[in-house]
Amino acid sequence: MLGSSSSIIRRQQFLIRALGGCFKKQTHQRFTMQSMMSGSALEADALGVLRSITPTLDPTRHKGQAGKIAVIGGCREYTGAPYFSAISALKIGADLSHVFCTKDAAPVIKSYSPELIVHPVLEESYSVRDEDKISISKKVLAEVEKWMERFDCLVVGPGLGRDPFLLDCVSDIIKHARESNVPVVIDGDGLFLVTNSLDLVSGYPSAILTPNVNEYKRLVQKVLNCEVNDQDAPEQLLLLAKRIGGVTILRKGISDLVSDGKTVSSVSMYGSPRRCGGQGDILSGSVAVFISWAHLYISSVEVKYIGSPTMLGCIAGSALVRKAASLAFKNKRRSTLTGDIIECLGKSLEEICPVS
Amino acid sequence: MLGSSSSIIRRQQFLIRALGGCFKKQTHQRFTMQSMMSGSALEADALGVLRSITPTLDPTRHKGQAGKIAVIGGCREYTGAPYFSAISALKIGADLSHVFCTKDAAPVIKSYSPELIVHPVLEESYSVRDEDKISISKKVLAEVEKWMERFDCLVVGPGLGRDPFLLDCVSDIIKHARESNVPVVIDGDGLFLVTNSLDLVSGYPSAILTPNVNEYKRLVQKVLNCEVNDQDAPEQLLLLAKRIGGVTILRKGISDLVSDGKTVSSVSMYGSPRRCGGQGDILSGSVAVFISWAHLYISSVEVKYIGSPTMLGCIAGSALVRKAASLAFKNKRRSTLTGDIIECLGKSLEEICPVS
Repeated sequence: MLGSSSSIIRRQQFLIRALGGCFKKQTHQRFTMQSMMSGSALEADALGVLRSITPTLDPTRHKGQAGKIAVIGGCREYTGAPYFSAISALKIGADLSHVFCTKDAAPVIKSYSPELIVHPVLEESYSVRDEDKISISKKVLAEVEKWMERFDCLVVGPGLGRDPFLLDCVSDIIKHARESNVPVVIDGDGLFLVTNSLDLVSGYPSAILTPNVNEYKRLVQKVLNCEVNDQDAPEQLLLLAKRIGGVTILRKGISDLVSDGKTVSSVSMYGSPRRCGGQGDILSGSVAVFISWAHLYISSVEVKYIGSPTMLGCIAGSALVRKAASLAFKNKRRSTLTGDIIECLGKSLEEICPVS
Repeated sequence: MLGSSSSIIRRQQFLIRALGGCFKKQTHQRFTMQSMMSGSALEADALGVLRSITPTLDPTRHKGQAGKIAVIGGCREYTGAPYFSAISALKIGADLSHVFCTKDAAPVIKSYSPELIVHPVLEESYSVRDEDKISISKKVLAEVEKWMERFDCLVVGPGLGRDPFLLDCVSDIIKHARESNVPVVIDGDGLFLVTNSLDLVSGYPSAILTPNVNEYKRLVQKVLNCEVNDQDAPEQLLLLAKRIGGVTILRKGISDLVSDGKTVSSVSMYGSPRRCGGQGDILSGSVAVFISWAHLYISSVEVKYIGSPTMLGCIAGSALVRKAASLAFKNKRRSTLTGDIIECLGKSLEEICPVS
């Protein structure tokens, strides 16, 4: 289950290559991390985190160096969620955004935007005969595998559905990502999968779970064998993350709470009262980009401890999506949709962290 | 392999018919070509080139005279790239833009825009039985062949993929384009194909290769049997273009370098630090239009030597796409996507070269 050392070294070499000194001019922007060093939940300096990890744009860099993200999701029933996640990654500044979905979902997701690279590789039970399951499962994994090491972060779950054969294939994909030391953000039906198969992520520090109220409830019941305790929410989250072996959990709520089992931080700024479906998908795509940027940032600055890249990525993603939601709501009020929020990602990032 | 003389004469007659004196009023705009007469790389008078070769709009002209472009690309996996290339050609001012892609890709590419003419004629191995390959290959070529002489320029490669059967068919299409003396811009997976089969373009002066960093590296290794030398980049590019028998190469980078094996020019103006995928597709479609305009321009003015149409087309295409990228970036900053740049093509051209 643990990552093979050669894959890890390859990934590290890639990250070092990709680095290219893009943060050199940013050290003065370093944020205060006191809030994250505490065992109790304190408001993170989320804007400071966001400004620090966002790389400068440098004309000498080439395609891919600002991030290559892949979303695993999209089936016959759901196509919006993986699109929202993947397009959000691009709108924040990733260079390439891929989607791996079922054959039925692919033409639809492609048609939403020519900017995405959509791979029609997953299969659901209804299209696979029992005797073909093993061979098709191998083929699906091989298709994803050949791309894996190019990605800076995966998002597993948006619009994945709950088909047993498909989820088995996705389990194999998560295992392979882990062997290749690629960070994996898990949301939506991906959380249904890992809540039932905790081994998939347990002890993997580059796993990030982003549960909403109900998904968090199931996770707490399964792992801590109790109910959600809102009085001691930060302590319970810390314990939960620790019990799953130091994964990072972003618990979505009025305030977002983030913990990696060592520290807890909250992000309460901005926000919108609109709860239209799809906002979680924006967050998963955003967190994926910021985690890949946080990895580069941490490798580029000489500090003893500035927080794990997964914590930094979650805090930055949470702050940006809240800001974008608040901007969109200001304009669109009750009719605010997920697409409106996505259209505000760029402006929000520019307001917080101008290009020059 | 060399073009049959009857096809060449037909093409020339077509060009003369299409010409219609559209440059008559433009001779005062003639640019200085000193920069391109030198063996070393000098900054081209790119705006001068662009203004000179862009035809005036004349109400007496009819559909097709401002350019008919075809993109060969688009498969099950990739649909955005051929769309970006083909729509860019239209947005610059071509009258008709076709896409020849696989049957899976066609409905998706059609759905991006009703402005394109999309032909679902290519096939990938997975949909072809071994015993049918020869007949299907002939059928594919026949489908493209019947359109070939109507096109002013082909773009081969955007979203083509690397399926061996499909690439074999595309080799036949390139051979046929060459026999018909139709210029061919080769990018993306088309470069993968011709790097492995240099005969397809070697010695064809109307072949234009538009490699990015990695594609250029493979080309240099294959042809010059050495590594890329950034110290003497212009000399190496000149040698490379000469060795492939005088094709034109547009080497994309911080500055774009262009050579036809006789001269080298650079285009360094404008630009954007954003490296989102798809920008190369805008360039291939743009270069295709400008090459067809450069052909008309050269036939319409009485000058001894003003540079090859392929050089002029590459310089103009590079300048326009850089300008559009810089405009889009000014507005959209980090969230700039390829579609945003395409939306700036028209405004950029109008700023450089107003209609009246």
